[in-house]
Formats: sequence, C-alpha cells, structure tokens
Amino acid sequence: MARIAVVAGDGIGPEVVAQARKVVDAVLPGVVEATEYDLGAARYHRTGEVLPDSVLTELAGHDAILLGAVGDPTVPPGVLERGLLLKLRFAFDQYVNLRPSRLWPGVTGPLATVKPGEVDLVVVREGTEGLYAGAGGSLHRDTPAEVATEESLNTRHGVERVIRDAFARAGRRERRKVTLVHKTNVLTHAGSLWARAFAAVAAEHPDVTTEYQHVDAAAMFLVTQPQRYDVVVTDNLFGDILTDIAAAVTGGIGLAASGCINPEGRYPSMFEPVHGSAPDIAGKGLADPVAAVLSAALLLEQLGHSDAANRVTEAVASELANRAPGVPLRTDEVGDRLAEYAAG
Amino acid sequence: MARIAVVAGDGIGPEVVAQARKVVDAVLPGVVEATEYDLGAARYHRTGEVLPDSVLTELAGHDAILLGAVGDPTVPPGVLERGLLLKLRFAFDQYVNLRPSRLWPGVTGPLATVKPGEVDLVVVREGTEGLYAGAGGSLHRDTPAEVATEESLNTRHGVERVIRDAFARAGRRERRKVTLVHKTNVLTHAGSLWARAFAAVAAEHPDVTTEYQHVDAAAMFLVTQPQRYDVVVTDNLFGDILTDIAAAVTGGIGLAASGCINPEGRYPSMFEPVHGSAPDIAGKGLADPVAAVLSAALLLEQLGHSDAANRVTEAVASELANRAPGVPLRTDEVGDRLAEYAAG
Ligand SMILES: CC(C)[C@H](C(=O)O)[C@@H](O)C(=O)O
Ligand SMILES: CC(C)[C@H](C(=O)O)[C@@H](O)C(=O)O
Repeated sequence: MARIAVVAGDGIGPEVVAQARKVVDAVLPGVVEATEYDLGAARYHRTGEVLPDSVLTELAGHDAILLGAVGDPTVPPGVLERGLLLKLRFAFDQYVNLRPSRLWPGVTGPLATVKPGEVDLVVVREGTEGLYAGAGGSLHRDTPAEVATEESLNTRHGVERVIRDAFARAGRRERRKVTLVHKTNVLTHAGSLWARAFAAVAAEHPDVTTEYQHVDAAAMFLVTQPQRYDVVVTDNLFGDILTDIAAAVTGGIGLAASGCINPEGRYPSMFEPVHGSAPDIAGKGLADPVAAVLSAALLLEQLGHSDAANRVTEAVASELANRAPGVPLRTDEVGDRLAEYAAG
Repeated sequence: MARIAVVAGDGIGPEVVAQARKVVDAVLPGVVEATEYDLGAARYHRTGEVLPDSVLTELAGHDAILLGAVGDPTVPPGVLERGLLLKLRFAFDQYVNLRPSRLWPGVTGPLATVKPGEVDLVVVREGTEGLYAGAGGSLHRDTPAEVATEESLNTRHGVERVIRDAFARAGRRERRKVTLVHKTNVLTHAGSLWARAFAAVAAEHPDVTTEYQHVDAAAMFLVTQPQRYDVVVTDNLFGDILTDIAAAVTGGIGLAASGCINPEGRYPSMFEPVHGSAPDIAGKGLADPVAAVLSAALLLEQLGHSDAANRVTEAVASELANRAPGVPLRTDEVGDRLAEYAAG
C-alpha cells in the first residue's frame, strides 16, 4: 500500500488532480491510499494559515505528495510560494526537481523547425539551494538609499548530489548525455563549484557524454535546437527559467509535469503539474489534466511502480496522438479515456 | 566630429566591424574619427594584459566605443568577461543595456506562430548591478565542505534610473507599453524594490501601459507570443537570458545588436553585436555584419545622429528583405550594399 497525500489546491487544481487519481486507481487498483489536505489560497483566505506545523508533520508520514496547483492573484506574491511550495521542497529535502519535456506526436509546438517525437529531454533542476535559499534582505527600505540583496548559496554537498542524480538518469537513457548549464563566466565562484563537481562526477561516468553551456546560450538553443538535449542539470533559478522554455517549445505548460524528489526516500517526494491554478477557467471542466496525470506517472515511477508509470505515459501518448484538432476538451472525459487505456 | 574608439577584437570581430565603419563613413562622411584599440584574446595571449588602466583612461576620452567581439575558447572563463566587457560596463556606468529585437521581413524565425514584421521589442537590461556586481566568494574550496556564494546587489538608485530610461523609451514608441520582468515571488527583497520603483515611475507616466511578469513566464511568452512585448525592463541576469531568447525567436544572435549605454553621456557608451567571435568561421569572409551594423546604428542614435541611424536601419531592412534564400553571404559584399543604400 502506498500512502499518498493529495493537495488538490486552488482553481483547476482539484479538477486535474481528480483525473490523476482516477488514472492511478485504474492502473494500480487498491494500491494507493490517498488522504486529502486542504492547503492553498482558499485556506489562507479562510484561516490565515499557509502550512501549519502539524500538517507538515502529517505530510512527512506519507510516501509521496500529489499536488494540483496552489495560488490565486488575491494572495500577495511570495506567501504561498515561500510558505508552502518552497517550504515543502526545503523541509523534505527535495533536491532533485525533475522536469521532462517531450514534443509528443499529435502536439503542435510553436517551432517550425522541430517535428513531434524529436524532443525528449529532462531538466534536473537543483531544488534546495541557490537563490531560492531565501538569503537576502534590504536596508533603508522606501528611501532613495534602499539596497536589497539576494544571495545564491551553493554547497559542494548540494551541487554534487544533484549532479550525481542527473548522471544516474542519463545512464538509464538512450543518448546518455548530460549538459551542465550555468553562467561560469560571470558567476565565477558558484560557477567554478558547479563545473568542478560536474567534472568529478563525469569522470566516474565515462559512458556518459557531457557538455557545458552558459545559461543564455542554453536558453537560445532550447528555442533553435531543443533536439540536442538529453539530460540538462542546472541550478535552481536557471532551472526555473529553462524548464518553462522547454515546456513552451513542447506545446506549453499545459502538458508539463514536474517532480520535487528526495531520491533517498527519507522524505516524501512531491509531484505537480508545472501550470498554475488558472482561475480564469476553474470550475468549467476545460482544464487539460495531462500534466497532472504525467506528474502522477512520475510519482508511480519514484515509488517503484515502473510498469504502471509506463502504462500511464503510454495512455497520454495515445490520448495526444488522437486528439482531433480544434475540438475543446473536457477534463473528466480526458481522465476517463486515460484511465481506461492505462487499465489496459 | 565624433571620436569613436574601435575595439575590433577577436575572430570575426575585425571583419564585421570593418563593415560597420564602412557604413558609418558612408552615411556620415567625415563626421567620425575612429581610433583602433587592440584588446581581446589575442592581446591577452601576447602580453597577458586584458585592459590596462592607461587604455581605460584613453577610452574614457571618446564619445563612444564600437566593439566587434572579444573572446576565444583558449582564454579561461571570466578573464575577458570580467576583465574587459564587464569592467567597461561598470567603469563607464553603462547602466542601460539596450537590446532591440525585430523579426525583419525576409528573415525566417524558428516560430511557426509569428510572421515577419510582427515582433518589434526592446529589452532594457540593467547593466551595473544585480548578480553582475561580482559580490561572491567561496570557502573550503576543493573540499567536501566547499560553499560558494553569489550576491545580487540592487539599489533604489540603480533600479530606478534604468526603469526611468525604459519608460522614456516607451514614451517615444508607438505602443507605449513597459513590461517589468523579475521573480518577485521568490526573490522577495530585490523583487519588492524593483516592483516599488517600477510603480513609482509608472505613476509619472500615465500614458504608458504597464504589466509585470515573472521571469519564467516571460521566457515562455517570448517563445509563444513575442508579439506582445514592446519595452521590457529587467535586471542584469534576467536580461542576459531573455535577450538571447528574443534574439533566437527573431532569427538568431547573428542579427542582434546591443548598446551598453550611459544615458547622461558622462562616460562613453559601447555598442556591440550580441554574437561572439565565432572562431570557426573567422577570416573566411562569411560572417554576417548586420548585427555590427545595427549596433553602429544604435551608436549613431545615441550620439544624436537620428537621421543617419534611421538610414542605416533602413539599409538593413532592405538588405534582409532582398536576400535570396540559400545563397551564402560575403561579409564585405553585405557591407558594400549597406553602405551604398545608407549613403542614399
Ligand atoms: C511558484 C514558484 C515558487 C515556482 C518556482 O520558482 O520554483 C514555480 O515557478 C516553479 O517552477 O515550480
Ligand atoms: C559575455 C558575457 C559577460 C555577457 C553577459 O553576460 O552580459 C554576454 O552574455 C552578453 O549578453 O553581453
């Protein structure tokens, strides 16, 4: 039995998570026990609470977390991001932020230069360090003398472990290539640490091809030649930006899945679609649940249910390949089709 | 008489700069006095010098600097970037890094969704602060306990002046729209400073439309809807990444121009193509000089020669609209055509 905490969240979150659960129950009947947690903008507005310690402790007792989407324009910037999403990433030491991007057959991407099936990359984004450490401050606020700082903190420990994960993943893929992305020519201290850790881990993996790119060049090549990437490993902020570009060139964040993973399983990993709560279409049954379902596939994979994960991924491939262009989708109908396919 | 310092630099730098000078001399005969400075990878290898103080002092005596490209894979990362390019940006207080992107008629971009003529945006990138301040360090280097930091420094002074420049530019454009890009939900201290300075300047420009986007969303929308942007103002590192995306979606960095501007003219501004020294094609006469020529047009504009700048820009538009697809270009022939057109 796998114990999953479900945070459906705000906006379209509950709608897409319902489909993900439907698909998981279909592919692995009776294996997952889900407990719902009410967190997000709605709870914040109702109670002022973002993530009570008692809830954090309860979440820690689960095997994994499935999250829909949290947030709403009415919540001040940073409150749910720092107080909930980043809090979970840091508290549960989710140092691998895994973001696969594929241009699926049937999906029209924005690039004239790329054909469906040609892009299949995964960004392994560091999840617990860098500019996300929250090490910043300000002085003389609201005066002409104001200064504000943000500090990127990088440790050999934190950098090396995520690079190891990237190489391990590359070793299980066909092309076995890892691209390190940083900005070593400007961020010389952190860049040097990343580059040296990368070289050290690469030396242990002679079967894996490696390359290095500056983040600006990588942003450009993701647009002009996304086919060239296999596994990309990069820091927290660069990964935030690059994964949205990768999502954009493969059909949009509506299809992008994500996992915040603690690979050792000491803490629960968390899986969530990259898209937000999309309040404009919430409650209408129009949201595409594919990103949530693919996130559930990453969850199954992480819990060791590789066959089930593959069946869910195949269900998505079939769904996308068979969508009639221009026909509006219904969230629950997509979920039904995926569940049926995945159940076999 | 305008006194221009020319740093042709490495690789294709001298080839493309020669065309830019040809065009400038054609459009404004006898107006520009150029002095050449030998800086870049070649000088570094020959003498170990990157930017001697005496040269910096001489450069300061010019009205503007035209730079081709510096760098070579044989120089360790950071040496020329920190020692030359960033040194000049900081020493000459070039706080506006101006990067226009247009999808010119005749140019095929990578996006199926965008037609030539539809994209016309300019990124106003902060040039003297943020993560480029060089405020970082490391401890316990080369041990498992190593930590490395990079600090983003932001001042109200530095942020407000570049935002003012962006609004001034927007006021002179047709759409009069400014998009602030930051990551206020994670970089809460610097983000708040940027957002408050932006709101204050916006209040003085009721005729300018404003919007805010997180950097990850902006990176995505630059790929899916670049048409939506007019003026984008952002910090140093975000601007580095976003301008390469903007270049990519408008036909590549081979066409992208850039100005590092000290708007008050207290110090010389510097103009350079965004592309690098491209050692692989250097000396073959194959480099496209358009980015260098467009950079020279930005230079002319900055020095008050708006008519000449417009004629050069029109020459480029004509050149690009009339290029026969698939025919390899010759650097000097392109320069000749542009000079002839610009001369009228
Ligand atoms: C919401 C925000 C904190 C988050 C991030 O910056 O990591 C999001 O953009 C993401 O990519 O998951
Ligand atoms: C070469 C490097 C220092 C520079 C930067 O990061 O600003 C370059 O990428 C640019 O965009 O001009």
